[in-house]
Amino acid sequence: MSREATMSEPQRRPGVVRSVAELRDLVSAWRRGGDRIGLIPTMGALHEGHLSLIRRAQQSCHRSVATIFVNPLQFDRPGDLAAYPRDEALDLERLAEVGADLLFAPTPEEMYPPNFSTGVMVAGLTEGLCGEHRPGHFGGVATVVTKLLLQALPDEAFFGEKDFQQLRVIQRMARDLNIPSEIIGVETVREADGLALSSRNRHLSQSQRAAAPTLYAVMREMARRMTDEGESAGKAEAWGRRHLSEAGFEKIEYLELRDEEKLQPLDAPVQNSRLFAAAWLGAVRLIDNLKVA
Amino acid sequence: MSREATMSEPQRRPGVVRSVAELRDLVSAWRRGGDRIGLIPTMGALHEGHLSLIRRAQQSCHRSVATIFVNPLQFDRPGDLAAYPRDEALDLERLAEVGADLLFAPTPEEMYPPNFSTGVMVAGLTEGLCGEHRPGHFGGVATVVTKLLLQALPDEAFFGEKDFQQLRVIQRMARDLNIPSEIIGVETVREADGLALSSRNRHLSQSQRAAAPTLYAVMREMARRMTDEGESAGKAEAWGRRHLSEAGFEKIEYLELRDEEKLQPLDAPVQNSRLFAAAWLGAVRLIDNLKVA
Repeated sequence: MSREATMSEPQRRPGVVRSVAELRDLVSAWRRGGDRIGLIPTMGALHEGHLSLIRRAQQSCHRSVATIFVNPLQFDRPGDLAAYPRDEALDLERLAEVGADLLFAPTPEEMYPPNFSTGVMVAGLTEGLCGEHRPGHFGGVATVVTKLLLQALPDEAFFGEKDFQQLRVIQRMARDLNIPSEIIGVETVREADGLALSSRNRHLSQSQRAAAPTLYAVMREMARRMTDEGESAGKAEAWGRRHLSEAGFEKIEYLELRDEEKLQPLDAPVQNSRLFAAAWLGAVRLIDNLKVA
Repeated sequence: MSREATMSEPQRRPGVVRSVAELRDLVSAWRRGGDRIGLIPTMGALHEGHLSLIRRAQQSCHRSVATIFVNPLQFDRPGDLAAYPRDEALDLERLAEVGADLLFAPTPEEMYPPNFSTGVMVAGLTEGLCGEHRPGHFGGVATVVTKLLLQALPDEAFFGEKDFQQLRVIQRMARDLNIPSEIIGVETVREADGLALSSRNRHLSQSQRAAAPTLYAVMREMARRMTDEGESAGKAEAWGRRHLSEAGFEKIEYLELRDEEKLQPLDAPVQNSRLFAAAWLGAVRLIDNLKVA
């Protein structure tokens, strides 16, 4: 649906703006022209998963606006923030490949001016899974995503299902606060061996990279055991934890069946249930999830 | 600036909508027609103070949208919520008198659907003054005002300076979250004897009503002592507390000089400083404030 000729000019770089005022000027002009606007918030280090969000945005929106902002508020470990990969030039090339219309890459000062003191919190949904292991993380996510949505006021915003809990938190927040944008989840993109794409995968050593696809393989087998053999969630989880440990995963934060709406634990698959996993290979934390029913 | 002929049809009642969808339809149509939209959030029980907000909105906006919603989230005492006056028919008459264009009066279910779980918090500004004495109050205010602003997306929203701390909290929140509306404070409206208008004044007995203007009179005298006689804030406050007690005020929650931006306590008047007061007459809590310099 993009009005730019992306096939004929595949390498044309998107415009880059760094201030909210410039972003709003551009988006308002597009909107006045009747364009639907799609927003794709990211922290950069763009991979095929991010690009799939932009392609999905182009299906239902005339304009796709990617944002890159490594949000300090959502990092629970300072070392993780410092180590987070940043390469805007490379990111811009990837955005050009898919024909994104605009990159909004604000400075930390533009996002958090002096005396910034407001937070958005979502109760309930943020308490289990990653919320339990990353204190403050979802508050930081909810706050920055609220800001990005209100800065751009897109018709639709796109988030990967890889961070499924984050997707649900953002959907709940947008509904609760009456943010006038539709929040759309997009299926996880995987390597050929099943590993979910993630900016953190580049930190895996060769042997860790070889072990990493086991996370997805274990979830698939757990799903099979529960649906085909009627195994309980508890038994499948015990099997999965054992198997992950044997494959070299050192700390399994969670490996659980939950419902997709309220993210409450389940004893057995029901409609709209999903497996959720977070586990460490050395210093790298991997997360993934799989729809079971 | 109102495009309705308010002089020729002074008693024409504004339209009433109860759902966000209807509100957005109307406001969007007005905006497409080039109108600037002004929002005046209230909890009803409208008095001359509220009407002054609507008149102010009419100066800079083509359309004035009043909201009435008695927000359960911001009441720290359940009895206060139950006792809060509600008379929509009377409120509508007053809105008709000033020529408001629309009343948005949602149900609690429309504002807080099942599994509502998002909160907006402002740190720092909410910690002293009323924030200290009304736990949770400003979180409830910030959450409902964020919702109302995002439901209507007005160009400007108007709040009384009588709730000065609330005004500052809302301005900070709107800036921090990039809510695309300007937040405008409007001067407090007073009775001839100086008492600030408030929905709660109707709960005062005759003798309490006679004592109530002392709150404003004491603040004026404190301001005079500090600016004309160079008295310290501490000495002026001690005098003021004594005087209020003698006049029958039973509990003085605060009576303090603070700066108008960060609401931090001051020892002496500086530019943009203001006196803040909260005190009880029987079961009625009165608040007021006065610009000193």
